[in-house]
Amino acid sequence: MTYPLIGPLRVVESSAFIAAPLAGLTLAQFGADVIRVDMIGGGIDHQRMPRMPGPDGRSLYWAGLNKGKRSVAVDLRRPEGRELVQALVTAPGPAGGVLLTNIGTPWLAHDRLAARRADLISCTIQGNPDGSTAVDYTVNSATGYPAVTGGGSLQRPVNHVLPAWDIAAAYQAAFAIVAALNRRQRDGVGAELRMALSDVAFTMLSHLGVLAEAELLHEERPSIGNHLYGAFGRDFGTADDRRVMVAAISVNQWSALVQACGLAAEVQGLATALGLDFADEAQRYAARDALAALFEPWFAARPYAEVAQALDAARVCWGPYRSVRQALDEDPRVSLANPVFEQVDTPGIGRHLSAGTAVRVADLPRQATAPAPRLGTHTDEVLHDVLGLSAAAVGELHDRGVVAGPPQE
Amino acid sequence: MTYPLIGPLRVVESSAFIAAPLAGLTLAQFGADVIRVDMIGGGIDHQRMPRMPGPDGRSLYWAGLNKGKRSVAVDLRRPEGRELVQALVTAPGPAGGVLLTNIGTPWLAHDRLAARRADLISCTIQGNPDGSTAVDYTVNSATGYPAVTGGGSLQRPVNHVLPAWDIAAAYQAAFAIVAALNRRQRDGVGAELRMALSDVAFTMLSHLGVLAEAELLHEERPSIGNHLYGAFGRDFGTADDRRVMVAAISVNQWSALVQACGLAAEVQGLATALGLDFADEAQRYAARDALAALFEPWFAARPYAEVAQALDAARVCWGPYRSVRQALDEDPRVSLANPVFEQVDTPGIGRHLSAGTAVRVADLPRQATAPAPRLGTHTDEVLHDVLGLSAAAVGELHDRGVVAGPPQE
Repeated sequence: MTYPLIGPLRVVESSAFIAAPLAGLTLAQFGADVIRVDMIGGGIDHQRMPRMPGPDGRSLYWAGLNKGKRSVAVDLRRPEGRELVQALVTAPGPAGGVLLTNIGTPWLAHDRLAARRADLISCTIQGNPDGSTAVDYTVNSATGYPAVTGGGSLQRPVNHVLPAWDIAAAYQAAFAIVAALNRRQRDGVGAELRMALSDVAFTMLSHLGVLAEAELLHEERPSIGNHLYGAFGRDFGTADDRRVMVAAISVNQWSALVQACGLAAEVQGLATALGLDFADEAQRYAARDALAALFEPWFAARPYAEVAQALDAARVCWGPYRSVRQALDEDPRVSLANPVFEQVDTPGIGRHLSAGTAVRVADLPRQATAPAPRLGTHTDEVLHDVLGLSAAAVGELHDRGVVAGPPQE
Repeated sequence: MTYPLIGPLRVVESSAFIAAPLAGLTLAQFGADVIRVDMIGGGIDHQRMPRMPGPDGRSLYWAGLNKGKRSVAVDLRRPEGRELVQALVTAPGPAGGVLLTNIGTPWLAHDRLAARRADLISCTIQGNPDGSTAVDYTVNSATGYPAVTGGGSLQRPVNHVLPAWDIAAAYQAAFAIVAALNRRQRDGVGAELRMALSDVAFTMLSHLGVLAEAELLHEERPSIGNHLYGAFGRDFGTADDRRVMVAAISVNQWSALVQACGLAAEVQGLATALGLDFADEAQRYAARDALAALFEPWFAARPYAEVAQALDAARVCWGPYRSVRQALDEDPRVSLANPVFEQVDTPGIGRHLSAGTAVRVADLPRQATAPAPRLGTHTDEVLHDVLGLSAAAVGELHDRGVVAGPPQE
């Protein structure tokens, strides 16, 4: 679903992979006209896995990240192709003049474009701030997290699978662009925004207190497997071989868990034996292994359905472990019962469950999410609408191979 | 560092833990006046670990997430205290009328506040959309990621340590608030924004193509340890017992890696033997184990310094694994050499390396990041500035215990 909150805004996106495309998707979900410009035949992410079967099977990854955008296919190696993209970015009008990119090519440099449109807003996502290459995985390795994930260590690190730094970069880019737009509407000035994936990661170490912990306390976050840091929480197995994650961070969450499992006396006995007060989250954390041993048998003795019912009845903060298939099969939060989801028919892919923005805006009609376009679907209409090119001029660009439309069905 | 991009904006934040505080921090980093309102003595996150030593040691977590905000301490259980917070949120003027919360208490419900200020923008971050409780860990368990992280499975899931869904929610909240502000400046209308952590996670499954993969291909993302999905990338150990992460997603990255390691002939031999073309990322992925076995000896035969030099010389996309202490000691990206970082002197904590926003805005002077305040530091000035209360009126509120200032040093 899409909400028209941003107002008239046209963003030209020259991008690949996750960070910039997800930022563009986020802007599109709030009503921006996002024009993704790609090399004829597709950029380096156009066939990224997972893909539909067959040699020409469309990328489900690309289709997920480019929902609701317009697609223009241009020969980006030729000066005329580059001129067209520069013209699209710098076309006049208050809605235009915004570039979103993680390609970082000199012909899309801010200064060159700002010479044609002074109030340009550009947002460039990089790997490292010095321009050297880095991706989510090669930044993450240096944050310390893989050394403390999954009971890992520096010698046996565990990489995350979720591209968390790309995601954090994407939403910050969308935020920064709208903030810069707000200033442009106020003061008439553009902005050159740059963000490095490595800065996204390392600034987060400061925001979460992890950096100060290392600097001031000379401590590293310990590697504690599935335990939750600083309070009580862990995964537990049920009698029928399922697992659930339980979190007891606040004192209310803790009381609910103890009550649900009927273990008040045992927990009090442990507290007395250890001289601890489990109303204090840090003291629960200190006794996490002993506490987990008290709770394990309760979960192990009950099938999942009974565990779920008891935890829900006591308002425990918990969640099941599920595969994506299981989530689709049994979790109403991942279904059409949740208005965040809708059925979308993507060309070349078919009908599938698809999400709009996670933000819900009360009293504002939701607009349906458009699917990801075929590459080049909007080449002609964009050249006409934005650049005012005649049908004959567009036809000539096609004939000379400077632009392309969608593949023939 | 802070950039004044957003323009006059006052946000009242009633929050705890990560998602809403990080959203408020993000707004503060772009120039908003963020007033965090807490219960006298602190909310449930005020003593969250890690903490400075001693019984009253300040939380480094709280200090990281609340940099540059103003702090007001109020007795939130009393009607007069709640009235003060409602008055702060709904105080007149174009800069005000914005509430950011993840507390979800009825006395801060949108409708009640909008009755006092019609153009109110409120953003409420929830666990689940039905209002039931959920935290990052209990949402993450249901996304499928723990079952494929670290070579895990549904029976042996691996939780992430980075609170990735909280982070994604935070930046989306900041984005949505500025988008709603943009609309309010245009049309004069407010907005009731709600976002559930579970929706943040499940919508991401759609955006990354993981949901369509499960629905249409009946496939789950495989559990492949530290291998990168869909291309070639993995961690490798060096002769001196360090590890590096290498990513070869694009064909350029792949060529650089093969060249750096001098393995062109061996790699070509493997391609011929298997009948594969490693210029195609999917075929590199299919042969990932055999390829990794070719590269392992090269890394194992060289100390880290030599590996780093060779990979950099060939412009390979790679990164070292580091602990946070190592990053502080040896990575210039996490130091004052990087303008994203600065020294901040936080009351009760001392001087430490601290980050501003990861976004760099060219030609705009950076303003220094203010430290996290002591709880209640700005109680008096906010009541005076925003509500126009006299010193006598503020004094009376103190006397009756409705508000509090900072603790005596």
